[in-house]
Amino acid sequence: MMNPLQEEKVFKDPVHKYIYVQEQTIWELINTKEFQRLRRIRQLGTCFMTFHGAEHSRFSHSLGVYEVTRKIISQFERNGYEDWPKEERLLSLCAALLHDIGHGPFSHSIEKTFGTHHEDWSCRIVLGDTEVNQVLRKVSEHFPQQVAGVICKTYYKEIVVSLVSSQLDADRMDYLLRDAYFTGVNYGTFDLERILRVIRPFQGHIVVKESGMHAVEDYLMSRYQMYWQVYFHPVTRSAEIVLQKVFGRAKHLYEEGYSFAFMLPPLLSLFRKSLTVEEYHMLDEALMQTVLMQWSTEQDPILSDLCSRFLNRRLFKYVTLELLDAQQIERLRTTMLEAGFDPTFYMEIDFPSDLSYDVYRPGEEDERLPILLLDPNDGLTEISLKSEIVQSISGIHKGKYHLYYPEELLQVDPQFIPPDLRKLLDFET
Amino acid sequence: MMNPLQEEKVFKDPVHKYIYVQEQTIWELINTKEFQRLRRIRQLGTCFMTFHGAEHSRFSHSLGVYEVTRKIISQFERNGYEDWPKEERLLSLCAALLHDIGHGPFSHSIEKTFGTHHEDWSCRIVLGDTEVNQVLRKVSEHFPQQVAGVICKTYYKEIVVSLVSSQLDADRMDYLLRDAYFTGVNYGTFDLERILRVIRPFQGHIVVKESGMHAVEDYLMSRYQMYWQVYFHPVTRSAEIVLQKVFGRAKHLYEEGYSFAFMLPPLLSLFRKSLTVEEYHMLDEALMQTVLMQWSTEQDPILSDLCSRFLNRRLFKYVTLELLDAQQIERLRTTMLEAGFDPTFYMEIDFPSDLSYDVYRPGEEDERLPILLLDPNDGLTEISLKSEIVQSISGIHKGKYHLYYPEELLQVDPQFIPPDLRKLLDFET
Amino acid sequence: MMNPLQEEKVFKDPVHKYIYVQEQTIWELINTKEFQRLRRIRQLGTCFMTFHGAEHSRFSHSLGVYEVTRKIISQFERNGYEDWPKEERLLSLCAALLHDIGHGPFSHSIEKTFGTHHEDWSCRIVLGDTEVNQVLRKVSEHFPQQVAGVICKTYYKEIVVSLVSSQLDADRMDYLLRDAYFTGVNYGTFDLERILRVIRPFQGHIVVKESGMHAVEDYLMSRYQMYWQVYFHPVTRSAEIVLQKVFGRAKHLYEEGYSFAFMLPPLLSLFRKSLTVEEYHMLDEALMQTVLMQWSTEQDPILSDLCSRFLNRRLFKYVTLELLDAQQIERLRTTMLEAGFDPTFYMEIDFPSDLSYDVYRPGEEDERLPILLLDPNDGLTEISLKSEIVQSISGIHKGKYHLYYPEELLQVDPQFIPPDLRKLLDFET
Amino acid sequence: MMNPLQEEKVFKDPVHKYIYVQEQTIWELINTKEFQRLRRIRQLGTCFMTFHGAEHSRFSHSLGVYEVTRKIISQFERNGYEDWPKEERLLSLCAALLHDIGHGPFSHSIEKTFGTHHEDWSCRIVLGDTEVNQVLRKVSEHFPQQVAGVICKTYYKEIVVSLVSSQLDADRMDYLLRDAYFTGVNYGTFDLERILRVIRPFQGHIVVKESGMHAVEDYLMSRYQMYWQVYFHPVTRSAEIVLQKVFGRAKHLYEEGYSFAFMLPPLLSLFRKSLTVEEYHMLDEALMQTVLMQWSTEQDPILSDLCSRFLNRRLFKYVTLELLDAQQIERLRTTMLEAGFDPTFYMEIDFPSDLSYDVYRPGEEDERLPILLLDPNDGLTEISLKSEIVQSISGIHKGKYHLYYPEELLQVDPQFIPPDLRKLLDFET
Repeated sequence: MMNPLQEEKVFKDPVHKYIYVQEQTIWELINTKEFQRLRRIRQLGTCFMTFHGAEHSRFSHSLGVYEVTRKIISQFERNGYEDWPKEERLLSLCAALLHDIGHGPFSHSIEKTFGTHHEDWSCRIVLGDTEVNQVLRKVSEHFPQQVAGVICKTYYKEIVVSLVSSQLDADRMDYLLRDAYFTGVNYGTFDLERILRVIRPFQGHIVVKESGMHAVEDYLMSRYQMYWQVYFHPVTRSAEIVLQKVFGRAKHLYEEGYSFAFMLPPLLSLFRKSLTVEEYHMLDEALMQTVLMQWSTEQDPILSDLCSRFLNRRLFKYVTLELLDAQQIERLRTTMLEAGFDPTFYMEIDFPSDLSYDVYRPGEEDERLPILLLDPNDGLTEISLKSEIVQSISGIHKGKYHLYYPEELLQVDPQFIPPDLRKLLDFET
Repeated sequence: MMNPLQEEKVFKDPVHKYIYVQEQTIWELINTKEFQRLRRIRQLGTCFMTFHGAEHSRFSHSLGVYEVTRKIISQFERNGYEDWPKEERLLSLCAALLHDIGHGPFSHSIEKTFGTHHEDWSCRIVLGDTEVNQVLRKVSEHFPQQVAGVICKTYYKEIVVSLVSSQLDADRMDYLLRDAYFTGVNYGTFDLERILRVIRPFQGHIVVKESGMHAVEDYLMSRYQMYWQVYFHPVTRSAEIVLQKVFGRAKHLYEEGYSFAFMLPPLLSLFRKSLTVEEYHMLDEALMQTVLMQWSTEQDPILSDLCSRFLNRRLFKYVTLELLDAQQIERLRTTMLEAGFDPTFYMEIDFPSDLSYDVYRPGEEDERLPILLLDPNDGLTEISLKSEIVQSISGIHKGKYHLYYPEELLQVDPQFIPPDLRKLLDFET
Repeated sequence: MMNPLQEEKVFKDPVHKYIYVQEQTIWELINTKEFQRLRRIRQLGTCFMTFHGAEHSRFSHSLGVYEVTRKIISQFERNGYEDWPKEERLLSLCAALLHDIGHGPFSHSIEKTFGTHHEDWSCRIVLGDTEVNQVLRKVSEHFPQQVAGVICKTYYKEIVVSLVSSQLDADRMDYLLRDAYFTGVNYGTFDLERILRVIRPFQGHIVVKESGMHAVEDYLMSRYQMYWQVYFHPVTRSAEIVLQKVFGRAKHLYEEGYSFAFMLPPLLSLFRKSLTVEEYHMLDEALMQTVLMQWSTEQDPILSDLCSRFLNRRLFKYVTLELLDAQQIERLRTTMLEAGFDPTFYMEIDFPSDLSYDVYRPGEEDERLPILLLDPNDGLTEISLKSEIVQSISGIHKGKYHLYYPEELLQVDPQFIPPDLRKLLDFET
Repeated sequence: MMNPLQEEKVFKDPVHKYIYVQEQTIWELINTKEFQRLRRIRQLGTCFMTFHGAEHSRFSHSLGVYEVTRKIISQFERNGYEDWPKEERLLSLCAALLHDIGHGPFSHSIEKTFGTHHEDWSCRIVLGDTEVNQVLRKVSEHFPQQVAGVICKTYYKEIVVSLVSSQLDADRMDYLLRDAYFTGVNYGTFDLERILRVIRPFQGHIVVKESGMHAVEDYLMSRYQMYWQVYFHPVTRSAEIVLQKVFGRAKHLYEEGYSFAFMLPPLLSLFRKSLTVEEYHMLDEALMQTVLMQWSTEQDPILSDLCSRFLNRRLFKYVTLELLDAQQIERLRTTMLEAGFDPTFYMEIDFPSDLSYDVYRPGEEDERLPILLLDPNDGLTEISLKSEIVQSISGIHKGKYHLYYPEELLQVDPQFIPPDLRKLLDFET
C-alpha cells in the first residue's frame, strides 16, 4: 500500500530540523489546496497578541505532527516490535497530517458563536469532493473513510487513534515544542528523543516502559507550564473575548436584519448555518481579518468599536476575582449599562478550565486515552497512580475567575460608580 | 527628553529572549494602530512558500531592531564613549522602531508594479495625521521631522543614521538572526554579543576596532549565506513572480476598463495612484490575500488562474540559464503564445542581484555606509581593504539567470515545441 | 570599597555566553594559584563515567556562580530596591567566587573515608597564608573573615548568605544549567532570566513575588529531574562506590602498616589527618588519578584490582532491592567471602537520599533557607504551602536501595550460590 | 562481518544528542582500557587556559567521530548508492573510533620535544598486545592490520580513508562542532545535517554534489573562524610554549645527568626513547600534571619556575611583531640573559601556520585529500576552483610572528633595557 517517492523530499523545519517525506501520497496531500489553506490559519489564534512570535500556522504544525508520527513508527519498525501493525503506517501518517485539516480561523471564538466543530469539518473535507479526497482514494476506495475514522477516533484499532490523539500523542508532542519555539518561552521544551525511546506498542496500546516515568513527568510538567504561562494567558483570553463579542454582535445584528455595508458570501453562509465545503475553504484568517478591518468602519457603533479594539490591540482590561458575587456582578451590569457600555458585548467572566492532564474517566465527553506505564511485573498502570507529581498536576484546579471589561470604564466619573465596584475594577484613584 | 516608564515593560522574544521598553514614548508608539498594523505584514513576503516557518511579521522584526539599537546604545553609555551623542538616544530608538512603519504587504511585487516606495510611506506616516505622529509630537514639535530624517537618511548626524541603516546596522543584525531562527536554517546565526563588543562611536561614525575584523567577517559570511540560501531561493522568487504577474494582470485589466466582480476601495486607489494614509492603513496582507482568494473566481481566466496558483502554491517551474540567448527567448515567447500561455503573464527571466555586500561607491544610488575598521596606527580603513574574505564576497556576482514558466508547458505535445526549447525547459521525456 | 578595573575583562562561557569581571579584586582572586587549582577538580566527580560530557571543572562553575550573583545584584541595583544593602556587593561577589575553593578531588568519597569537610578547607584557604587571603586583605583587614563567614553561613546578614547558599541560590542556578549543558541532557534548563525577574530583596531575605510561583516550580522541577536522571544515576554511584572502596582499602592497608610501592606526601598526610594548606593544594584530581594508576600495579590484590576497575571503568553491577532483607544480605556476604570476594571491599548497599527540595525544618542540620513567596496581602509564605507541585516534590522519598557487587560474581558456579541469592543478583541463567 | 548487539546501546552526547552503538565489536572496543584511557587526555591540550569550557576529552571526540561516520554510512546505505562498498562498514567505524587511540597528553609539546608521533602510537596500540587488538582480531586475523592501514592512510580503498581523514572528514566535522560547543563560541557551528545531505560516494571518492557548494563554504568558514579565534589563540599558544620549555628544560637536565627529586618510570622511558606500549598507557594527562606539580618544587630554579607558571597560569606575555628583525632579536637575547632570564627557556618566536584549508598539492607532506565537487556536466572539480570564497581562504597567510617572554621582564629597570627593545616589548611606562 506504500508508494515511495523516487527521491525523498525534505522540508526545513525549525523544530524538527528537517521533515522527511517518503511517500507519493503524503507529497500529494501536502500539495492539495485544502492543505495549503492551513498556511492561512494561525496555530495559536489570538496568542500572537501576547507573544508576538506566535505567528506560526497550522500548516507548520500539521507537518510537524506528521514528522513526529513518522519518527515514532520508524522507531517501532527499527526495533521490530511485534505489537505494531505494520500495515497501518500510511493510514497513521495520513491521519497525522490531516488531523487539523478542518480547522478554521480563530476556531474557538467562531465555534462558540456559530456552533461549528472543526472535527466535523475535517471529516467533511476528507470525505467530500475535494483534492484531499481524490488523493486518498487513489490508495483505496475505503481509505478516506479510514482516515476520517482515525481523525474522529472511531477507527477500530485504538493504537492508530492513540498515535494521533491521546494524552501522549504526536499532536501534543509537536505543538508543545512548536509553540514553545515560536513564543520564545522554554517551558515547553521536553526531550522528544527521550520520549520516543521509552514508548512502545503493547497489546493494542501505546505504552511507556516503567523506567520512562521521569521522561513522562518532564513532558507533563512542560505541558502544565505551557497551559498556565501561554495558553491561558489572560491577555490572550482578552483578545479571544473581544473576538467572541465581535461575532456575537454581528450575529445579533444579522438576526435583527441589520444591513452590513460589507459582507462576503462565506460569512453569510456562516450566519445562515449553510456553509458548503467550498465556502469553508474561502473562510480563512485573511478573510476574517479583512472583515474585521472593513467592519471597523460599519455604522453600528458597537460592532465597529469592537473590531477596532481587536485590530489595534485595545483589548479588555481584566481583574482576578477572589470570589464570585452574583449580586455584585448584576449591579456592575446595571452600572455599565448606565455608563453606556452594553454588558452583553463589553463584559465577560471567564474561567480557564484545567486541561493540563485529565486521567481516564469512562463516560466523560472529550476524554483522551490515558498514559499507561508498563511494568514487567505489574502490567499496565495509569501513570498518575505511580507518580506523585502527575497526581499533583492532575488534581490542580487553580484557575481563577477573571472579569474582563473595557479600560474606559475607569475613566467614568468615580462618583457614578459605587465604591465596592470601583474596588472590584481595580481603580487606581 | 527621556521619559522613563514607572516600571520597565517586557516582551518575550524568541530571538533576543526579552525586549525591554523603558520609555513612555516607545511604549505609546508600540500601541499605535499604525505600529500594530505591522502584525499583518509578513517580514519575508513570499518566503514562507519555501521555508514554512518564515511566517513572522514586521512587528516582531521592528521590536527586534529597536532592541538591538537599545543594546548598542547601552554599551556605548556603559563604556562612557565620548563620541556618542547621548542626547540622540530617544531619536535613535524611535527611528529604529519605526523604520519599517511604511512597509506594505508583499512590498517588492507591489512596489514594482505600482511604483510605490515604502520609505516614502514611512515618512508620510511619521509626518501625517496619525497616532504615531501624535505620540512623537509630544516629545517636541520637530521630533517627527527628525525621526523621518533618520529613516530617510537625511538627518545631519551620520552616526544616528548609521545605527539604523548602514552595512552593519541594527536592521540587518536583527533580520539575519530572526530570519535564520524562523526559517530554521542556521547559516544566519552570527554572534551578536561579539559584534556589540567590537563596535564603537568614533568621530561621527560607528566603527569596528581592528581586532574585531574576524567578528565582522563572520557576520558578513552569515549574510552571504542567507542571501543565497534563503532570500534568493528560486522557489521564493517563483512565488514573487507569480504575484507580480497577478498585479500586472490586474493593472492591465483595470486600465482596459475591466469590471472586477470583487474590488475594495484601497485597492482601487492603488490602481489610481491616489492612496491616502488612511487607505494605506487598510492595505494589509490580510486584505491582499482576501483579494487573491476572491479573484481566484474572477471571470478573466488569466487573473483567476494566477491567483489560484499563488494561493495553492502551484508556482512556476524554473531552469537555470547558462547563457542568455535573446533569439531563443523570443522563439520561446512565440511558442508559448501558440500553446495558449501569454508570455507577458506566464514567463519571466530573473536575475538576482548580489546585495550581499557592496563596498562604498560614491555617487551610486542606494549605497549604504560602509564598514570601517579602526586601527590605532592607520586610522579608519574600509574593511574589504584589509580582509581578503570580505573582498572575495564583495566581488562575487555569481547570480545566474533563471527562466520561470508554468509546469503545464511540459505537458504540451513535444512535437509542438522545438527540440532546443524542449532542452532549455528541462523536459525529462 | 569597590575598585573597578580600567577595562572590563571578559571570559567566554558556554552557559552564560560571557562572564564579566569589573573589579580588580575579583580579577586578582581568579589569578591566585588556589583558584587556578579548581581547574584540576572536576565539578561532577565520577559522573563523567555515565555522561561522558561531564568533564567540566569547579573552576568553570565557580566563575558561573560569580556571574549569576553579579546578575542578581545588577538587577537589584538597576531597580533601586531599597532592601538590598548596596555596600555588600563586593563581599557577595567574592564569596560567590570562592564558595567552592576548598573542594578536593572526588570530594564525596574522600570526605566519607577521611572525615574532611570541604567547607572547612574553604575557610582555611580564605583565612590562611594563601594568595587568596592576600588579595582579600587588600580590601580590608576583616574582609577575609567576612568572606569566610558568608561561605560558612555565619555572616550576620542573611540576605548575603542566601545569595550564595539557599534553596534558590546562585550556586544551584549555575550548576543546574551547567551540568545540563555539559552532560547534554535538557532537563536542567530552566529559564534563568525569568527567575532573575521575579526575585527581589525584602526585609533581609531574598523572596519571590507571588506571580513568579510558576517560574520557581519550573526551576524546582528541573532540579528534581537532574537529581534523579543525573546526580543519583546508579552508574555514577557505582563509580563512587568503587572509589570509596579504593580509599577504604588503602586506609586499611596503611593502618595495618602495609608498605606502599607508590606514595606521595600529601596522600600520606591525608592518612595521618595532618594535611597542611600547602599539601592540600597539591592534592588535586591529577594526583589522585596518578595514584590510582600507580596503585593498579600494587602488590595488594584488592587495592590493585579496585584501582583498575575504576580507571578502566569496570564498575560494580547493581540491582534494585524491592525490600531490604538483613538476613539475606548477611548470607550474601558469607557466600561472597567463600567465592573469594571480601564483601567489605566488594559489596555495598546504597540509598540515595532525596535532596531535591527540603522545606524549612528548624533545628535540622544542613538545612537551607527556604523559598519564600511575597504576596501584597498575605506577606511571606513558604512556597510548598502554595504550590501543590512543590509539595508533591518535597514529599517524595522514592529512592530505592541498590545493591552493588562485582559482575564476576555471576560467573561463579551457580551451584555454589543459593537460588534466592542468584535471583537477587539478577542471574540471567 | 557485522555482529549486531541484541539491544542498541546509547550514549548521551551534548553535540549529537545521542550516540548509537549497534555492533558488538564497537561496544567491546569502547570498553577496552586503551579506549577508556582517552578520558584522561584533553581534546584541546592547553586551550582550556583560554576558554575555560574546553575541558573535554579525546574520549568524547572519538565517540563523536564514530557517530558522524555512522551517520554518513547510514545515509549512503539508505540512498542505496552503488559506489559505496558496503562491506567496509565495520572497518570504517572501527577506524573512526580508534583514529586518536595513540594520542598522548599535550601531544604537540611532547611530540615536538621528544620526537614521538601519535599516529605511530595508534598503530602500535592497534597492532600490539592490547585489549584493542584482541577485540579486533575476533573479527578476522587481518582486521587489526586493516584498521591500522585506514588510520595511517595506507589502506588501498581511498574512500574508506577519506571518511576518517580528508579535508571533509568525520574527524573535523566532529571536532569543529564539539570544540565550538565546549568553548562556547558559535563560529564553529555549521549545519552537519546539511553537509550529510550533499556528500556521496563516487568512483572511489567522497564528493559533494555541486548544489552543495554553499554548504561546504559554510563549513570551511567555520573552520577558518575556529582556527583564528580558538586554535591559534595567542594565550593558548603561550601555555603551549611554557609547556615546551618545561619539557625542553627537563630533557636538558636529564641529559646533563641532573638528579630529579621526583621521577616516574614512563617519563624516564620517554627521556630514553624506550617507551613500551604498556608504559605509554600510563602516560596520561593526570600523570603529566602530577609531574608538573611535583617539579614545581624541584631544586632547579628554571624547571620549578616554569612548572609553577603553567599550573598557576602565569603564562608568557606576547607581542605581535610587524616585522622580524634578526639583529634586534639577538640583542634581546643578550639583554634577557643579563637580566637573568635564559632566553632558551624564556623566549620564543612563534608563527601560526595556516592550516585552515590546503588545496591538493601533490608531493607535499601531510597533504589531505581535497574536497571535490561533482557536476553532472564537468565531472569532478576541486572546490577552490569554483568558489571564490574558498579560494580566498586557501590563499590567506595572515599569521603574524608573535614574541613570547615573561612579564617580569617589564619590571626590570627600564634603564637597563635599550629603548627600541622596550618599545618592542610593549612597555607601558
